[in-house]
Amino acid sequence: MTTEFDLIDRIAGLFSSPEGVAVGIGDDCAVLDPGRFDLVTMDTLVEGVHFRRDWSTAEDVGWKAMAANLSDIAAMGGGPGAFFLSLALPGPPDVAWVDGLLKGMREAAESLVPESFEVSAGGGDITETSGPLVVTLTLLGEASPAGPVLRRGAVPGDRIVVLGATGHAEAGLAVLSAGDAVNRGEFSAMLEAYRRPRPNVRAGGLLGLYGLPSSMIDVSDGLIQDLGHLLKASQVGARVESFHLPIHPEMARLEELNQGSALSWALTGGEDYRLLLTVPPARMPKLWDMAHQYSWEVIDLGEVRSPDEGLQVFGLDGEPLEMESQGYTHFEAS
Amino acid sequence: MTTEFDLIDRIAGLFSSPEGVAVGIGDDCAVLDPGRFDLVTMDTLVEGVHFRRDWSTAEDVGWKAMAANLSDIAAMGGGPGAFFLSLALPGPPDVAWVDGLLKGMREAAESLVPESFEVSAGGGDITETSGPLVVTLTLLGEASPAGPVLRRGAVPGDRIVVLGATGHAEAGLAVLSAGDAVNRGEFSAMLEAYRRPRPNVRAGGLLGLYGLPSSMIDVSDGLIQDLGHLLKASQVGARVESFHLPIHPEMARLEELNQGSALSWALTGGEDYRLLLTVPPARMPKLWDMAHQYSWEVIDLGEVRSPDEGLQVFGLDGEPLEMESQGYTHFEAS
Repeated sequence: MTTEFDLIDRIAGLFSSPEGVAVGIGDDCAVLDPGRFDLVTMDTLVEGVHFRRDWSTAEDVGWKAMAANLSDIAAMGGGPGAFFLSLALPGPPDVAWVDGLLKGMREAAESLVPESFEVSAGGGDITETSGPLVVTLTLLGEASPAGPVLRRGAVPGDRIVVLGATGHAEAGLAVLSAGDAVNRGEFSAMLEAYRRPRPNVRAGGLLGLYGLPSSMIDVSDGLIQDLGHLLKASQVGARVESFHLPIHPEMARLEELNQGSALSWALTGGEDYRLLLTVPPARMPKLWDMAHQYSWEVIDLGEVRSPDEGLQVFGLDGEPLEMESQGYTHFEAS
Repeated sequence: MTTEFDLIDRIAGLFSSPEGVAVGIGDDCAVLDPGRFDLVTMDTLVEGVHFRRDWSTAEDVGWKAMAANLSDIAAMGGGPGAFFLSLALPGPPDVAWVDGLLKGMREAAESLVPESFEVSAGGGDITETSGPLVVTLTLLGEASPAGPVLRRGAVPGDRIVVLGATGHAEAGLAVLSAGDAVNRGEFSAMLEAYRRPRPNVRAGGLLGLYGLPSSMIDVSDGLIQDLGHLLKASQVGARVESFHLPIHPEMARLEELNQGSALSWALTGGEDYRLLLTVPPARMPKLWDMAHQYSWEVIDLGEVRSPDEGLQVFGLDGEPLEMESQGYTHFEAS
């Protein structure tokens, strides 16, 4: 019979690096190397809310849990380190599924994290539940020597930049929700974006190292909503030109099929985990240089304005958009 | 309508101290004061598994979540600091219940943590679930300057000591499970132990400061099972005299009422969160001094032996006990 202790041994086996952790799994607490980590984030995925087992494999869910946390560390301009995993599992536990989850977490760490950082298992807790599976990940990280990049710090005149297209994950979700109404084979890029989002982990670390952004956040709840958080923290307004947002051909095709609005996905879709940053104009040439060197997709969305201008979003026709929803908020609709 | 962001504001309001946290709730990550925390623990409570809303108030659940994590930090000989809270809530959220949970967490922190430490809110995540409520707490702490006290370190000849009686929480659970078969009013101490366990937080910090134990663990899963973890980590055996275990009159009374075995509760009952430590004989006088000074209940259970002796537990009649179960393990019985 598989017990919680066997599962803990599996985690220890898969993430064997003790990087940054003096005492890992197997004591009452993990003991960290002194002074190593100064960033902490925690994200929870709930079956039926954040994922469905018929839409994502166990590996996909593990990937997404790790990606969401890696993205938070990247949004501080830092690099990731030790993680702590809590699983509430419907019993008896599906060991193959848990193994898949762990494998997906490791794949995300190996694929997304630059060599200068190492993701290691610090500990966690495994319990049973009568309800849906709940995955909670706490990830520690290291800010850059230049200090963490916060949400506050944007000033009027700064450019607003997002590193990569948004709305893909939400469009992928629309494909899955549409069932037989669409041919999933036509939307492989959107499905991949939903199942295996690729946060800008390397870019976040480099931007932090150069102290380039005046403020930064990751787009987890939707571009406009997360921009709103950044503006509120910085106490500024903004003007966003939505015609700068790239619309992927698969998103356009989905809109043709009446499955939703491509522009809405780009503006309000969550879970793309793109970095959204503000950059003083004088530093924009450096950003373009880095984008060229590292093959980043840099989208210049608009400008930080004075707080009394609020957040103005202009549509494809140059007219101000009325936003019905800014993005995803738990409980709001209930 | 209450959103996840409103609930996060409530947490920030209740735990306002920024002790050890440079940037707390409201950014992508918390930013910790450099070098401050080197201990990490994570514990999850699931409704229906770890608590029932008809048996514990929201305050009780918050208290227990905090107590379980405080106990892990104490078991390293350290002191607690910033916490990160993940709540998966059945929606729409019961705001009064969540407020009660947060209040219970704060009460536990205020009541159990000595003045030399401060428990502060670093961040977390609030999501919805279609299933039972899940509370996951990650707590950071500081090891003593003398270093963390690990599970490994016990050597043959060391005394085995538990700080306080065990089995009370399990007996309290038996009272609740018995329904109308018992009069709950007769068992207030056991019910209190189940609902509001009091881990040895202050004692753990002091023991760590003096480097007194050779090894330490907290009794969360049951005395014998947790002793087993300690012995395995230390690669030693032990001889335990169970007649040294105090049997509370309420436990004896419950046994009279055929609700279970008092000795079994003491040996295998979980969630008392007592510190279980091994102490070199030469340091026992210091332990007794401290126990006298700080009013600790010190129970000398037996002796660490060579590994080939295994774990021998002697019953009230002096004969070796055959243990059916060592304690609580998730999934074992499924």
